[in-house]
Amino acid sequence: MFMPVGTLGSVKAVSQETLEELGARILLANTYHLYLRPGVEVVRRMGGLHRFMAWKRAILTDSGGFQVFSLSELRKVTEEGVTFRSHLDGSTHFLSPERAMEIQIGLGADIIMAFDECTEYPAERERVRDSMEMTLRWAERSKRYFEQHSQYPVPGTRYPASHQPSDASRQKSRSLDYEGRSASGSRISARDDSFSEVADHRPLATDHCSTQTLFGIVQGGMDRELRRESALRTVEIGFAGYAIGGLSVGEPREMTREIVEWTLEFLPRDKPRYLMGVGTPEEIALYARMGVDMMDCVLPTRAARHGLLFTSEGRVSIKQARYAEDAGPMDPACECGVCRRYSRAYLRHLYAANELLAQTLNTVHNLHFYLETMRRVRRELSTVGKGKPMTTEDTE
Amino acid sequence: MFMPVGTLGSVKAVSQETLEELGARILLANTYHLYLRPGVEVVRRMGGLHRFMAWKRAILTDSGGFQVFSLSELRKVTEEGVTFRSHLDGSTHFLSPERAMEIQIGLGADIIMAFDECTEYPAERERVRDSMEMTLRWAERSKRYFEQHSQYPVPGTRYPASHQPSDASRQKSRSLDYEGRSASGSRISARDDSFSEVADHRPLATDHCSTQTLFGIVQGGMDRELRRESALRTVEIGFAGYAIGGLSVGEPREMTREIVEWTLEFLPRDKPRYLMGVGTPEEIALYARMGVDMMDCVLPTRAARHGLLFTSEGRVSIKQARYAEDAGPMDPACECGVCRRYSRAYLRHLYAANELLAQTLNTVHNLHFYLETMRRVRRELSTVGKGKPMTTEDTE
Repeated sequence: MFMPVGTLGSVKAVSQETLEELGARILLANTYHLYLRPGVEVVRRMGGLHRFMAWKRAILTDSGGFQVFSLSELRKVTEEGVTFRSHLDGSTHFLSPERAMEIQIGLGADIIMAFDECTEYPAERERVRDSMEMTLRWAERSKRYFEQHSQYPVPGTRYPASHQPSDASRQKSRSLDYEGRSASGSRISARDDSFSEVADHRPLATDHCSTQTLFGIVQGGMDRELRRESALRTVEIGFAGYAIGGLSVGEPREMTREIVEWTLEFLPRDKPRYLMGVGTPEEIALYARMGVDMMDCVLPTRAARHGLLFTSEGRVSIKQARYAEDAGPMDPACECGVCRRYSRAYLRHLYAANELLAQTLNTVHNLHFYLETMRRVRRELSTVGKGKPMTTEDTE
Repeated sequence: MFMPVGTLGSVKAVSQETLEELGARILLANTYHLYLRPGVEVVRRMGGLHRFMAWKRAILTDSGGFQVFSLSELRKVTEEGVTFRSHLDGSTHFLSPERAMEIQIGLGADIIMAFDECTEYPAERERVRDSMEMTLRWAERSKRYFEQHSQYPVPGTRYPASHQPSDASRQKSRSLDYEGRSASGSRISARDDSFSEVADHRPLATDHCSTQTLFGIVQGGMDRELRRESALRTVEIGFAGYAIGGLSVGEPREMTREIVEWTLEFLPRDKPRYLMGVGTPEEIALYARMGVDMMDCVLPTRAARHGLLFTSEGRVSIKQARYAEDAGPMDPACECGVCRRYSRAYLRHLYAANELLAQTLNTVHNLHFYLETMRRVRRELSTVGKGKPMTTEDTE
């Protein structure tokens, strides 16, 4: 599945109703951004992120690590954690595995990411190894804190006898579901899909009844041996799902692909495998066919806001004068609400005139294109054979 | 009815689907802005404004006069018309009654406004009279050009025998209705409401099957005698509807009210009476009860974009920190999609974080508030007695 990015608790320019209509089943929200605005305590007191943003479906929060390394200034990394200055007001903050867990638990995300260091590219092998080792130690600390504080067992952890959910309590807790004021859109929990083994049925401290689960992150730069070691040792620590991090950081696309294909081999097929921050429509289809279960990327939403649209006929830069009198739809093969109603000429006019509606319509189209791409790949895979990931050769 | 303002062929931050859901039946579009971007020829070649912006319901275009006087620089007014420089690039343009008609006919609006001079406030009586006299001469020129070029008869004009619509052709032309790609939302033509006498049934040159009709504009500043004279002489020229212009230009609110009430007395009750550019929710309710049929104002949309929301409990400035943890809806008495789903805390967060969704949600709420206000007044009036406008005493 593809996860639209809702950095600050909103996928930029589109409403939650529209995201439901588009078929988005899980959103990614940024821990770093929400920690700064509106702050985790506000979100927690408002009943958690689901209730705060009125989104009943699943939410994954990243660890904050990537943003700390890419956005903030004057950061100082030690074994303990990272001291950094806010990109907003320069105020000083500290993020550690424990703090990242505390924040994500407070936000009430369904899927929480371990705190990792995203290794820069290029980097010396020694630097990559040191960074990977620290990420592994941080993964252990993340898991330990999560187990002690999330109130939820992680996979492999036995329920204490008194907490073992009976069928009755399971039934009961389901009816405690988040009470939104919107009647539309039933919550599609992550566990309805591929995360059934981490199901838990007690309401969250944040007043949002949900499963909260922890994923580990594989690092290791562009080095195959380090990637293998990172994967195996992360799996040894044991998580409900595994992410491949540290890619799309400036390396050639072919290298990304090689590392993904290589790393997947060392991650269990019966757990969700999540490739972070990737990529173009062609790439998300490619990686899904390789066996990647989850991806996120700002590309469809960010490109939309810059007038770049993905279509079945290739990329369209809608700002170009050649579309000024083009009465056709953005993508003749697209069934989205934008392509069914509006012309390229109108979209071009909205963009040229700096109208807010341009942002919304472009984003809706691009998200539809991404989500539809994933639906198409899912249909293909279920035809080829369930649970049998294709090799890249099958896809070409 | 209240007409949301879609300056450049888009009501800022909301889609046409949303406007349909909100129950907007007629939009106002700005001739001056559309003339500059994307240009009338583009819109005409794209099949007219309805088709261009994919809006099947009614559209009214203003004459461009108000924007020329308020936005453009270095304007020079002569009997012939107005030379002005674009606020966008400083290029020189000329607008006259004939040119304003030509542009509006080309845009394919359902209701076209005569070209007028909006008299500034305050102004000397002599200046107001001269301006009013010129507006009357421009009104005659507007009507003459419209009659000769719109292909449509104005009220009181007999159809040439060869053009007299038979029941058969009337039936046929109705099936020629604008062929949008959207299945939703049937066109609510202006003639379905209160403009039945100006019905016409031939397709527009702009490929949009519509009635095109012309309204006159009453000026006369804040002078009762001049207002009366302007109203009577505009009615003598003869239009399908009458607008009260030149108000909300800086005068005290009480003065606006007095002039509106006074001027209405001299405008025929069996024709639409349109008060331009007014006002707050309280004012539109007040003027509707006085007998005004149509109003437009940028206030609900512009205020929304500045975080000012209209509610049954008064105005709310959503940017205030006091709403940071307010879990309640914007307006507990409101049935709009925003109030049914999102909290004040979330709307405050979106605004504070400069999220695009803030603009959309705030605008949806404010437009709903305005349109619902008008629906409420209509229900009241139909209870009191059809076609019998209330005096202000009835409303207090």
